[in-house]
Amino acid sequence: MDRSRPIGVFDSGIGGLTVVRALMERLPLEHIVYFGDSARVPYGIKSVATIEHYTAQITDFLLQQNVKMLIVACNTMAAVASQVVQERARDIPVIDVIEAGALAAVEQSGGHGIGVIGTPTTINSNAYARRIHELDAGARVYSQACPLFVPLVEEGWLDHPVTRLTAQEYLRPVLAEDVASLVLGCTHYPLLKPLLKEVVGPGVRLVDSATTTAQLAAARLQALALMRTQTTRPDYRYVVTDVPLRFQTIGERFLGRSLGQVERFEW
Amino acid sequence: MDRSRPIGVFDSGIGGLTVVRALMERLPLEHIVYFGDSARVPYGIKSVATIEHYTAQITDFLLQQNVKMLIVACNTMAAVASQVVQERARDIPVIDVIEAGALAAVEQSGGHGIGVIGTPTTINSNAYARRIHELDAGARVYSQACPLFVPLVEEGWLDHPVTRLTAQEYLRPVLAEDVASLVLGCTHYPLLKPLLKEVVGPGVRLVDSATTTAQLAAARLQALALMRTQTTRPDYRYVVTDVPLRFQTIGERFLGRSLGQVERFEW
Repeated sequence: MDRSRPIGVFDSGIGGLTVVRALMERLPLEHIVYFGDSARVPYGIKSVATIEHYTAQITDFLLQQNVKMLIVACNTMAAVASQVVQERARDIPVIDVIEAGALAAVEQSGGHGIGVIGTPTTINSNAYARRIHELDAGARVYSQACPLFVPLVEEGWLDHPVTRLTAQEYLRPVLAEDVASLVLGCTHYPLLKPLLKEVVGPGVRLVDSATTTAQLAAARLQALALMRTQTTRPDYRYVVTDVPLRFQTIGERFLGRSLGQVERFEW
Repeated sequence: MDRSRPIGVFDSGIGGLTVVRALMERLPLEHIVYFGDSARVPYGIKSVATIEHYTAQITDFLLQQNVKMLIVACNTMAAVASQVVQERARDIPVIDVIEAGALAAVEQSGGHGIGVIGTPTTINSNAYARRIHELDAGARVYSQACPLFVPLVEEGWLDHPVTRLTAQEYLRPVLAEDVASLVLGCTHYPLLKPLLKEVVGPGVRLVDSATTTAQLAAARLQALALMRTQTTRPDYRYVVTDVPLRFQTIGERFLGRSLGQVERFEW
């Protein structure tokens, strides 16, 4: 396979840009095509059949862009529709945020409990606990849905008393257990890392699924001899299905740099 | 026109059920068809062109159900696409939550300032201020977007310290002005009424657009001699485009009664 082909990253909206940011840092030579289904975000409140249908459409779109790897940067799609991506991708390697987060959590927990936070759909799917138990059957997993974290991040209240109070309330039951790590099971949550670090204290390690996904992508590309070798500046494409008013502002907060040109794609 | 035809009420999701609830109380003999576009909710973060397109589709669907009146129970659609509904409805009367809220606010403010709260899209559209100024050119309107209120209501934190703190922060600038009334410019907000009453204090009257819409609907049907006269029990139909996990739970909280049978419609 041509090593200079781009990596395809997708999410239901803009949250996956935290994964793109981590990829740019870890794999600075790789071309990236990002697809955000912003016209149909959020997926977390939709039925499984609808999410599977949308996931298939996005996978097909990225395969047409000739990607060499697919990264599911959306916890909801990874939780309920990863099979759909695998089937369509055939010989193209696929990795997802849940696989990456579960791997890192098991490595870092040292036999202690593992906390997992995410949107209600991700948590109710039990996907993190299932993947963690595949890696370590004896692992103790404590999960907590945090439905207000996404709107709080989008409001920009990253260091705000309301967010702190919300985090304290959500995390109380998880912190009451002996947990050594806390998996941030939603691509919005890395933006809350400084605040969450304070709330969980020094004894709990935060597993950021954006950076762990970038690490896993690097390892997989290395193993498959698929890393791009040219050192010319890589191309970054951002394709979205709708360009709402606040997209640019919020997107750049997630990406940590200018978004540049954003393409609009209509189904 | 046949007075026994149903009233069509629509929203981007479930929020409009607060309007249905108010209609059931104010007009207990009317048949109601409710359409909630739950597969594509929320509209507030989509572009105007997308919202207009979706609004046209829903309007056509309800006209095919032979409704005698259309009620736009979604502030976002009323703010940016009410023209689309009017054009397609032709001789079928149309009322919307913004018209109803603006009318009630002007009646109740007695020359004092009017506060308006809503989602970012509703507030940025300036639709409430525009309608209020059509009725009273000299009215002073103070608007404030409250993006976290919808997720807080959907989380069920109707009387919670986080919600109180959020409300205090959002309402501080509005309450610093001489406002006599505060328009709840989002169909989710009536569920926050008890908490908001405490936060705004006794000097500010809350204008609940669900009850004001039901009052306006009653007045309009009366004027057009379109009130249903049979006293047999009315039919209530709920049509949604997706039935997510929490739909029943949240829907019944909004409606204040059992939802009964929910029909699913696919575009």
